Amino acid sequence: MRLATLNDGTRDGRLVVVAPDGVACAPAPVATLQEALERWEQVAPALVGISRFTEELVTSQLMAPLPRAWQWLDGSAFASHGDLMDKVLGVQPLKTDLPLMYQGTSDKFYGPRDDIRFPDEALGIDFEGEFGVIVDAVPMGTTPTPAMAHIRLIVQINDWSLRKLAGPEMKTGFGWVQAKPPCSMAPFAVTPDELGDQWRDGRVCADLLVDWNGRRFGAANGEPMGHGFHELVAHAARTRDLVAGTVIGSGTVSNATYREVGSSCIAERRGIEIVDTGAPVTEFMRFGDTVRMQGTLADGRAPFGVIEQKVVKA
Amino acid sequence: MRLATLNDGTRDGRLVVVAPDGVACAPAPVATLQEALERWEQVAPALVGISRFTEELVTSQLMAPLPRAWQWLDGSAFASHGDLMDKVLGVQPLKTDLPLMYQGTSDKFYGPRDDIRFPDEALGIDFEGEFGVIVDAVPMGTTPTPAMAHIRLIVQINDWSLRKLAGPEMKTGFGWVQAKPPCSMAPFAVTPDELGDQWRDGRVCADLLVDWNGRRFGAANGEPMGHGFHELVAHAARTRDLVAGTVIGSGTVSNATYREVGSSCIAERRGIEIVDTGAPVTEFMRFGDTVRMQGTLADGRAPFGVIEQKVVKA
Repeated sequence: MRLATLNDGTRDGRLVVVAPDGVACAPAPVATLQEALERWEQVAPALVGISRFTEELVTSQLMAPLPRAWQWLDGSAFASHGDLMDKVLGVQPLKTDLPLMYQGTSDKFYGPRDDIRFPDEALGIDFEGEFGVIVDAVPMGTTPTPAMAHIRLIVQINDWSLRKLAGPEMKTGFGWVQAKPPCSMAPFAVTPDELGDQWRDGRVCADLLVDWNGRRFGAANGEPMGHGFHELVAHAARTRDLVAGTVIGSGTVSNATYREVGSSCIAERRGIEIVDTGAPVTEFMRFGDTVRMQGTLADGRAPFGVIEQKVVKA
Repeated sequence: MRLATLNDGTRDGRLVVVAPDGVACAPAPVATLQEALERWEQVAPALVGISRFTEELVTSQLMAPLPRAWQWLDGSAFASHGDLMDKVLGVQPLKTDLPLMYQGTSDKFYGPRDDIRFPDEALGIDFEGEFGVIVDAVPMGTTPTPAMAHIRLIVQINDWSLRKLAGPEMKTGFGWVQAKPPCSMAPFAVTPDELGDQWRDGRVCADLLVDWNGRRFGAANGEPMGHGFHELVAHAARTRDLVAGTVIGSGTVSNATYREVGSSCIAERRGIEIVDTGAPVTEFMRFGDTVRMQGTLADGRAPFGVIEQKVVKA
């Protein structure tokens, strides 16, 4: 099942179930995705049972499937990304087996075609292609195996980042505020079964195709996460209840074969350049630049739809 | 004006205006504080105009004035606290003139008399007494002087912390997730005029009386913030719009005269002990321990009411 949220002028939009063909949809029996997640056990069967899709799915009306969330916790579960970022930011790597995770702003997720407003090009505008999950209510202390059952939906995210601010903020130990403005979401939140066997061990084993200004930049696969999403959920829930609708991110999708498959963010390519030549060559985004992201299964399907956005001056 | 939220069985409660005597209240013309903050220019005059308080204010029904918020950004604006915490956590101090700030969980603020659930005493359970502000919508790029006008309400907060997790999380650079479960709020959110001239230069110049298990532990004053709340708001808004209802915290209230006035968290006292004897002596909280916090003006008034809570095993 794939779910989308249409812009009806309200903050949380109107929830629809997307037809298998992706061109039609049907109204959901609850108003919003947040409401569905709060009563998932009751609502999901009714959503799954919908078989008549009589409404045209108008792409320009698609918001983020969850236009705002009560909580957004982003991991950094790809080791090859972390290693390169340490080089870019000049940070001494921390030796830990624990998942890395920060709390980000969640009062707004940009829709898949919204222009993205930034105050200044000089801040080092970068995209970060990720996968994410949305959970229903997870009690404090839930361990990884039962956490898997709380993963109700899978999403695709662009975690916008301002790199010139990221290093200094990281060195405070307080995490990122200015360096991490709101993220974007691809239009469709999907149940795990939509990925077939490419949802394995809490990993989205799909390629994330990233195009910057119309040129292929990366096609990394989501499989090699050091911790699966169920482990990230359990990590997040160690000392708090997770509210229904909490979004948990994988961190930038990255493969050890980044020289072949490319990267899901500019900073990682700069890290490779630093390794190779001692200095970064690729510049960050300029106003007017576009980025396109599409998670793609082995059979060519793009279950999450497409993020396609332009950065503009605020 | 002082506002409170009564537990009516809903997640966001029911907003009331508190009578000057603090024992009666009147229903507000909007349902929730979040709604009031989203239309503050229209709603505030109606709230201020209320003069008949016919409803008894039942203390046991008081929730946090804002029981959940779309965003909670906590500063660390008291230099004497930061210096001691660096000693406790073994962190190399960062030299920066920028405000320190992290994003914390905001989907729940405990009410002033709720029991606080933690999984394990061994995690180093600590309180952190703070002041905070709640803003209406603040556009990206707002500078400190105009930011002052967006500070609509002032609150008193206990930022619960798990110290054994805090140091390791800080060293990741990602900020705190497990170390910072939900905070508590004192019952009354007050407009700045309620503090008279003890709201000065964006600072709450009131004593924060902290009692641990019935014994005075601290009485630090909120004045010596290195950055005023208006500067913290501007810092938070540099690269994002702040949604109405964003809560911004001062960080643990601390004075350079901590040997005389005491501390607003246990970790700070342990820092003093480390300075004095090379090792901490005071243990963290045990299940069953209580903490009481009361911001107090020079004339003895406690505009925010009282936080009075017990920690219990989850």
